[in-house]
Amino acid sequence: MRSTRVRIAIDAMGGDNAPAEIVAGALRAQEELGVDVLLVGDPQQIEASLKQHTQSSSLEIVPSEGAIEMSEEPLIALRRKPKASINVAMDLVKKKRADAVVSAGHSGAAMAAALLRLGRLPGIDRPAIGAVLPTMIAGKPVLILDVGANVDCRPKFLEQFALMGSIYSQYVLGVAEPKVGLLNIGEEPNKGNELAIQTHQLLEENPNIPFIGNAEGRDVLSGHFDVIVCDGFAGNVLLKFAEAVGEVALQILRQELPRGLHGKVGVSFLRPNLKRIKQRMDHAEHGGGLLLGVAGICIISHGSSQAPTIFNAARLAKDAIDNEVLDRIAVTSRLAES
Amino acid sequence: MRSTRVRIAIDAMGGDNAPAEIVAGALRAQEELGVDVLLVGDPQQIEASLKQHTQSSSLEIVPSEGAIEMSEEPLIALRRKPKASINVAMDLVKKKRADAVVSAGHSGAAMAAALLRLGRLPGIDRPAIGAVLPTMIAGKPVLILDVGANVDCRPKFLEQFALMGSIYSQYVLGVAEPKVGLLNIGEEPNKGNELAIQTHQLLEENPNIPFIGNAEGRDVLSGHFDVIVCDGFAGNVLLKFAEAVGEVALQILRQELPRGLHGKVGVSFLRPNLKRIKQRMDHAEHGGGLLLGVAGICIISHGSSQAPTIFNAARLAKDAIDNEVLDRIAVTSRLAES
Repeated sequence: MRSTRVRIAIDAMGGDNAPAEIVAGALRAQEELGVDVLLVGDPQQIEASLKQHTQSSSLEIVPSEGAIEMSEEPLIALRRKPKASINVAMDLVKKKRADAVVSAGHSGAAMAAALLRLGRLPGIDRPAIGAVLPTMIAGKPVLILDVGANVDCRPKFLEQFALMGSIYSQYVLGVAEPKVGLLNIGEEPNKGNELAIQTHQLLEENPNIPFIGNAEGRDVLSGHFDVIVCDGFAGNVLLKFAEAVGEVALQILRQELPRGLHGKVGVSFLRPNLKRIKQRMDHAEHGGGLLLGVAGICIISHGSSQAPTIFNAARLAKDAIDNEVLDRIAVTSRLAES
Repeated sequence: MRSTRVRIAIDAMGGDNAPAEIVAGALRAQEELGVDVLLVGDPQQIEASLKQHTQSSSLEIVPSEGAIEMSEEPLIALRRKPKASINVAMDLVKKKRADAVVSAGHSGAAMAAALLRLGRLPGIDRPAIGAVLPTMIAGKPVLILDVGANVDCRPKFLEQFALMGSIYSQYVLGVAEPKVGLLNIGEEPNKGNELAIQTHQLLEENPNIPFIGNAEGRDVLSGHFDVIVCDGFAGNVLLKFAEAVGEVALQILRQELPRGLHGKVGVSFLRPNLKRIKQRMDHAEHGGGLLLGVAGICIISHGSSQAPTIFNAARLAKDAIDNEVLDRIAVTSRLAES
């Protein structure tokens, strides 16, 4: 374990609910996780948000100027706004003033800023964004990567995703023996597109990857896999579909259940049960995705993040630091290279 | 409209519940749809299933020998078993003894048999399997294609899928002005992998395709799109994920709604509404996928199909025939070629 306190730079200007919800989550993280938070953003806006809270805080504010808007092209915007909050936050890690970055802002910009300012880990060609989804088995989430960083992939990239994912699963999500799967359209090794067929072979041959086989769409939420690798196109489609689908089911319930007189009477008896159903179907917030493969810990949270998500993101960052995830990935991927 | 009755060949040996459920669905189709059904399979097994039903039937039995197992490689198995039920059923269409085939057997084998025995429609490079999913808007399903026939696609294939899908949506699903979308990871035209970026341009330029833009994972079930095109890898993953998630949602309902005394009373008032919810969430209600682009009407139903699915599949087949879908695809794709 480290002797000093973990320091987390949180992008106070990123996301739909910035800075109020970000600040609220940051305060809670500092209080409950025993970490030091550096809030990066416009000092006036941050101070205004801090005033909404009664607890005295020792949060450090690191001033930045502007933020990257969702409509902006990341590379251009990052260059045009060198003092944007995400740039400043990454620089804190680069200068070793912080150990990790948490941002709910433009995810493409966060990835680009991380690549430009921190660089890649040795042995990793392409960083990936991992997302955690709940499965049918309570307390047994599945890590899916990549969910959007790399839309066109080579088999070697997916092999590296599998390596990084299994380390993350083991040392951050606490899975003793992670089971890695390859997203595919059938169980057999020869099933799938060119990418999947070639990746299957690489995964089977790599002794450092606990690969158990192909995962079909129906297996993603079964709880049989701890890590599922895919290209960023399929992963992004799947993630956004999964987030929306719970909402669809709830919508159908709201429309159909109260229909007719009998419906209205029935629903009046069911209020508590319906509330529990909503909780189980709602898209569970897991704090955010880890950007895996860059030379720094970066948690990319959903743009719609509220305080609990930012708190959870900070917790993920702390776990990743405490468990030396970066060193483990670097060592294992270098081994794989040699 | 045609003057003669529609004749549908149903593969009695295909699927997990063959032949009993297939026969039951076929009987209902013949009775309620005013079509003539030809049951293809082992006469003894079919007769035994028919005996379970009281209604006198005039179903014709067309004998076949064996069926393609799910574990078999389609092309090899089809050649080794020329009299397998799916081969015999396709031949009935080829010889104009039937107008359509319905099968819940090995979907890869059904596609291969259709290609080998019926061939492709002019102007179509690759047939696609379309699947219909319910959306958030009642009575407004979305057609997704391809869901597994072509795992590696060129932009031109997806353009042809869009053409076929919009015709199917209009003339079988009854959508007056179908809206076509491209499955992608963002709304902007320049988003996505190479395939998506190039396909976007083709779809925008084709005056015969009512293309309205990219559909992200979260938009698939929104009801804003009537047809969504994608390669068979992404489509298959999405379809199998969607089917599994619907079952999870129904399972949560079954567990949570009747809880406690109030729950039991409430549910007793809600039986008709719950039935409607099940219908809206259940993929079985949609009959199956149409194999689009081969020179014959082929409905490929889910392997787990029971009688209602087979009935619905026969209804889809009848609608496709009554509305001359094949001719319309052939004419439009030839137009697009010239």
